Amino acid sequence: MTVNVGVIGVGMIGQDHIRRLTHVLSGARVAAVTDADMERAQTVADGLPGAKLHKTGQDLIEDPDVDAVVVASWGPTHEEFVLACIAAGKQVFCEKPLATTREACERILDAEVAAGRRMVMVGFMRRYDDAYRTMKEELAAGTIGAPLMYYSGHRNPSVPPSVTTEGVLVDTCVHDIDVSRWLLDSEVVSTQVFSPRRAGQAADVLQDPLLLMLIMANDVIVNVEAAVNVAYGYDIRGEVLGETGTIELAESSKIIVKREGRYSGRVPADWRERFLRAYDTEFQEWIDAVAAGRSTGPSSWDGYAATLVCDAATEAYRTGAPAPVTMREKPDLYMVGASGDGHAPTGTD
Amino acid sequence: MTVNVGVIGVGMIGQDHIRRLTHVLSGARVAAVTDADMERAQTVADGLPGAKLHKTGQDLIEDPDVDAVVVASWGPTHEEFVLACIAAGKQVFCEKPLATTREACERILDAEVAAGRRMVMVGFMRRYDDAYRTMKEELAAGTIGAPLMYYSGHRNPSVPPSVTTEGVLVDTCVHDIDVSRWLLDSEVVSTQVFSPRRAGQAADVLQDPLLLMLIMANDVIVNVEAAVNVAYGYDIRGEVLGETGTIELAESSKIIVKREGRYSGRVPADWRERFLRAYDTEFQEWIDAVAAGRSTGPSSWDGYAATLVCDAATEAYRTGAPAPVTMREKPDLYMVGASGDGHAPTGTD
Amino acid sequence: MTVNVGVIGVGMIGQDHIRRLTHVLSGARVAAVTDADMERAQTVADGLPGAKLHKTGQDLIEDPDVDAVVVASWGPTHEEFVLACIAAGKQVFCEKPLATTREACERILDAEVAAGRRMVMVGFMRRYDDAYRTMKEELAAGTIGAPLMYYSGHRNPSVPPSVTTEGVLVDTCVHDIDVSRWLLDSEVVSTQVFSPRRAGQAADVLQDPLLLMLIMANDVIVNVEAAVNVAYGYDIRGEVLGETGTIELAESSKIIVKREGRYSGRVPADWRERFLRAYDTEFQEWIDAVAAGRSTGPSSWDGYAATLVCDAATEAYRTGAPAPVTMREKPDLYMVGASGDGHAPTGTD
Amino acid sequence: MTVNVGVIGVGMIGQDHIRRLTHVLSGARVAAVTDADMERAQTVADGLPGAKLHKTGQDLIEDPDVDAVVVASWGPTHEEFVLACIAAGKQVFCEKPLATTREACERILDAEVAAGRRMVMVGFMRRYDDAYRTMKEELAAGTIGAPLMYYSGHRNPSVPPSVTTEGVLVDTCVHDIDVSRWLLDSEVVSTQVFSPRRAGQAADVLQDPLLLMLIMANDVIVNVEAAVNVAYGYDIRGEVLGETGTIELAESSKIIVKREGRYSGRVPADWRERFLRAYDTEFQEWIDAVAAGRSTGPSSWDGYAATLVCDAATEAYRTGAPAPVTMREKPDLYMVGASGDGHAPTGTD
Repeated sequence: MTVNVGVIGVGMIGQDHIRRLTHVLSGARVAAVTDADMERAQTVADGLPGAKLHKTGQDLIEDPDVDAVVVASWGPTHEEFVLACIAAGKQVFCEKPLATTREACERILDAEVAAGRRMVMVGFMRRYDDAYRTMKEELAAGTIGAPLMYYSGHRNPSVPPSVTTEGVLVDTCVHDIDVSRWLLDSEVVSTQVFSPRRAGQAADVLQDPLLLMLIMANDVIVNVEAAVNVAYGYDIRGEVLGETGTIELAESSKIIVKREGRYSGRVPADWRERFLRAYDTEFQEWIDAVAAGRSTGPSSWDGYAATLVCDAATEAYRTGAPAPVTMREKPDLYMVGASGDGHAPTGTD
Repeated sequence: MTVNVGVIGVGMIGQDHIRRLTHVLSGARVAAVTDADMERAQTVADGLPGAKLHKTGQDLIEDPDVDAVVVASWGPTHEEFVLACIAAGKQVFCEKPLATTREACERILDAEVAAGRRMVMVGFMRRYDDAYRTMKEELAAGTIGAPLMYYSGHRNPSVPPSVTTEGVLVDTCVHDIDVSRWLLDSEVVSTQVFSPRRAGQAADVLQDPLLLMLIMANDVIVNVEAAVNVAYGYDIRGEVLGETGTIELAESSKIIVKREGRYSGRVPADWRERFLRAYDTEFQEWIDAVAAGRSTGPSSWDGYAATLVCDAATEAYRTGAPAPVTMREKPDLYMVGASGDGHAPTGTD
Repeated sequence: MTVNVGVIGVGMIGQDHIRRLTHVLSGARVAAVTDADMERAQTVADGLPGAKLHKTGQDLIEDPDVDAVVVASWGPTHEEFVLACIAAGKQVFCEKPLATTREACERILDAEVAAGRRMVMVGFMRRYDDAYRTMKEELAAGTIGAPLMYYSGHRNPSVPPSVTTEGVLVDTCVHDIDVSRWLLDSEVVSTQVFSPRRAGQAADVLQDPLLLMLIMANDVIVNVEAAVNVAYGYDIRGEVLGETGTIELAESSKIIVKREGRYSGRVPADWRERFLRAYDTEFQEWIDAVAAGRSTGPSSWDGYAATLVCDAATEAYRTGAPAPVTMREKPDLYMVGASGDGHAPTGTD
Repeated sequence: MTVNVGVIGVGMIGQDHIRRLTHVLSGARVAAVTDADMERAQTVADGLPGAKLHKTGQDLIEDPDVDAVVVASWGPTHEEFVLACIAAGKQVFCEKPLATTREACERILDAEVAAGRRMVMVGFMRRYDDAYRTMKEELAAGTIGAPLMYYSGHRNPSVPPSVTTEGVLVDTCVHDIDVSRWLLDSEVVSTQVFSPRRAGQAADVLQDPLLLMLIMANDVIVNVEAAVNVAYGYDIRGEVLGETGTIELAESSKIIVKREGRYSGRVPADWRERFLRAYDTEFQEWIDAVAAGRSTGPSSWDGYAATLVCDAATEAYRTGAPAPVTMREKPDLYMVGASGDGHAPTGTD
């Protein structure tokens, strides 16, 4: 059985998902596309034999030949399309953010709860990365005792001059926030932002690096260090300090080269190189779930939590003081496996 | 376009390829199966909606609904099936060995040369492993100068008691032999086998470990260290000594754990864990090539060379003296990219 | 020329220095000892042919056969002995702390400044550790640009039940504080303390781990993570995030062992194992300086700064709010090389 | 008690030992020097207050103010001086080789056996290196079972054009030979030399790299890979393959630097950087032993064995065939701890 997927938004990330669905993964095909830029949508559709072109996301969602939907459009449009998918009873994969405001996220939660079943998966791909999965598995095995602190380093080689400090908190740190909630199995109750010495090469308007501290409900403290102009590579670091040990992400270089007085390994150049396979796994698991008539992975609740924590972080940065995170009661729908991904990790480190 | 694949031999490895073609990769389906054990073939076919069951490999190969063939049956049967595929003009993926004797391999070479185009890919999956690909790429980039020596460590946790010393040379070391030819871009001209102190836990009939030395046409010396009862894991090591540097395979652990006085990473438990993704990549590239009407990857020539070197190694072990490897003239058909895999590596280390 | 050293305080650390001066290093001998516990002092003196026993530190300092003094007695006694050494015009090596209060430290500064030359070295041995020295050297070479953040992880396997949270800040974190000032070449202007989830095995009165944040005059933020019951070993971590790269302390294991599914290296068991050689180097450099008629290494100013930052950290812990560090004007005496160690590092990493 | 040491030969290595005895270690002083080049000897003596200058090694050895002797002169002179020390009843530290011929070594053995006590220590400093010591300790602990193979990689950045292939076997590989005997606690019974593809930058007369294979009495096979023009650094590698695990020398870099797309550590630049501390430890243990009236470390027997194996390797290189090593019966004098170093390793890895 092949899942017929409709894709809303065919920019860089949308096109990458189309490539993945078409040439890499098993069990799916792209049945329809649309985009705010119809010309771009047309070009993409032309390259996909048998794929329809729709004028709006709404049309695509309602198309009976579309089994499930990928939302990869501009963030502020996510709410509308996710709600439409829920209304249409179709599984939807929504790139982060789930929605850009607390209220929008809550409307999605309300709709999904009313529907009585999970239909939304949010694209937090780090949960599908082998290294993070193995870290979570090892943590769950209890070999280092309870987690006490978590360090999450997020280093980008560079960002466009348009990126703002708020943008780093909302678009970059959102991955560290989600992975912290998931790894530590606890919600964020408070955030605080510190501003270290600025990198000389950062744009004038940008506080870079940033130190975002998260206090979790279980008292674990998370230090998110975001540095987005490090030049040397795309370097994602993580270490859990547990009661009797630590777990850290290993370097990912495949070979070690010795020359000119050094032994060395490669640091990934960008997020594609680092997380290519996590995206593949994330999508394959979603396709398999859809084919089985269910959702999987990060839920609307996870998307809601991420948006609230990003909001709090933005406030904390503005005020310089700690900003609390206040969430509504967690609906039963998200209770079991809400922060899980619906699939057991495949077990290697 | 979906490639309809027929699978001959549905034992462990055949079933694994069927799972891969059905649930993991893009662009193929299993259209037909057969096996010497018809009951087993029936069970497998029952689990594959739309797949036919054939009584013989010959029938399967001739089936017009079969576009391409995977040969995963017992080694001595390979020649017959590969020749039949060539005769039928169908692309064939043949698990190693290509054939078990020099003469059988040469008959395949003759048939393929007569056909005037490559139709055979041999399953040397290490060429599709990210680490080996990056090693070859780095070597080709010239950053360590010309290769002078290559160390290839092949360590298995254990082998069944039935495995013989010849079996280790032919079935285990064949991967080290192929990867040496490919990495170093040179043929083996001579082999010698040394017998170190035996591991106490090895079966009485088995010389374990073995040291297989290969002299390449370009004078590089390769030391293949095969130890098949190391207990601690499945550990594949490799290091090229070049004129001005070295390249070695890195450890593959995804996380580092600190506890009980040690920091540590995982050694793979078996070949599946170590080479799972190499198999996926190997098959995806074959499917993509077949869909494009061509072959790719390790050729009949590579299969022929591997069989000859294994024969020489076996003789060298028996006599205790160096055994030369004598190959026929290399046909033009295999000249360009004969030891290449038809696809540029994807560029990470 | 042999330097005749008098040792005040012959407890564990004093005896270790005596062993070092007598059996390991070049150019010194222990000429006299004393201790608050005269019986212990007698026992130690008996084992040192030619060494005198003095009833008080004052007597020892005034002994004309004593060229230079090591103060390894209880912290609150340091001020008296250091001042006496300055009065006697003798070089003194004082174990940390220089003195236990701001006022006491300032009296030492006043006396040394009045004397017009440096006579005091404070025992911050990390500055003599090969790894830290290489880190400082690399940082100074500018290969990663200006430092922006520094992470200093201080993990002890366990502490006696008597250790208090204040004790961890004052006795444990003092090393991280000194090394931060030295590495970053900047003073601490503010401190803040955070209390993560407590380790279950920590004593009830102890907040363990602790997160001590230091804001440096040059805006670098330092995160000192002190965890003193980690069980797995004595693990000292450090990483500087610079503008275009990072430098981190490497693991110190001499060998890698592969067994039982893991490759692993050793984590030091305790501070002796980790810093044994740093102590040797520290003392040898002090002896060499004394023989040349000068002081070297961490100065009274460094001891004063460390005491002030520890005081601020203690206050920050008590109040939960940031606590500023206010220092007097830095006397000219400490201007050149005040945070240096008087010897260029020997240049390896 | 200070050991008064006489030094015969004050070239580069002799002067380094003088520096060590004078400025680094405890318990010794240089009491007398001599050299074939009297002018050089005079210059060195002038820099050593209280040191005598002797016209000949014989004079120095007979000087009653000399307690023990360091022989650091040209290899062919070693026999004469070592024999004179034995005759004078003085402990002698002899740089490798013990002597340059089998017969000369046997005369030393005869003299020492006749004297009835060990008086000779040979300068195989690798036995004092922390990494090798920890490797031996771990091996002895049995955690990887019995050793089966040993790989010893010896890589020099470059050698002077005067160095010959025989020179590499005798002067470079001698360290690998000694460390193999010591680690594996077994004698070499046969050697064979293989010549891989030559490094383009090696001098025309030089076969570089070389592969020296040693067959040990306990059937362990040792592969010594000597490459003396690798350009990238001084890189000493070692790995023991045991029955159920492996032990390898770790990289020695103190810090890891990330910049320009790589994480990297330092490879030592030369033997001084790599083995500086091993030399210190070696000499301190010798001084301590001499002060206690005994010898320690590598014995005349070890020096004799090394010379015989080097002879065999040279023959094997010349003939291209295996060359056996035939040793006399081992005298009782060397039976206990003959290949040991007289001191337990200090226990870290």
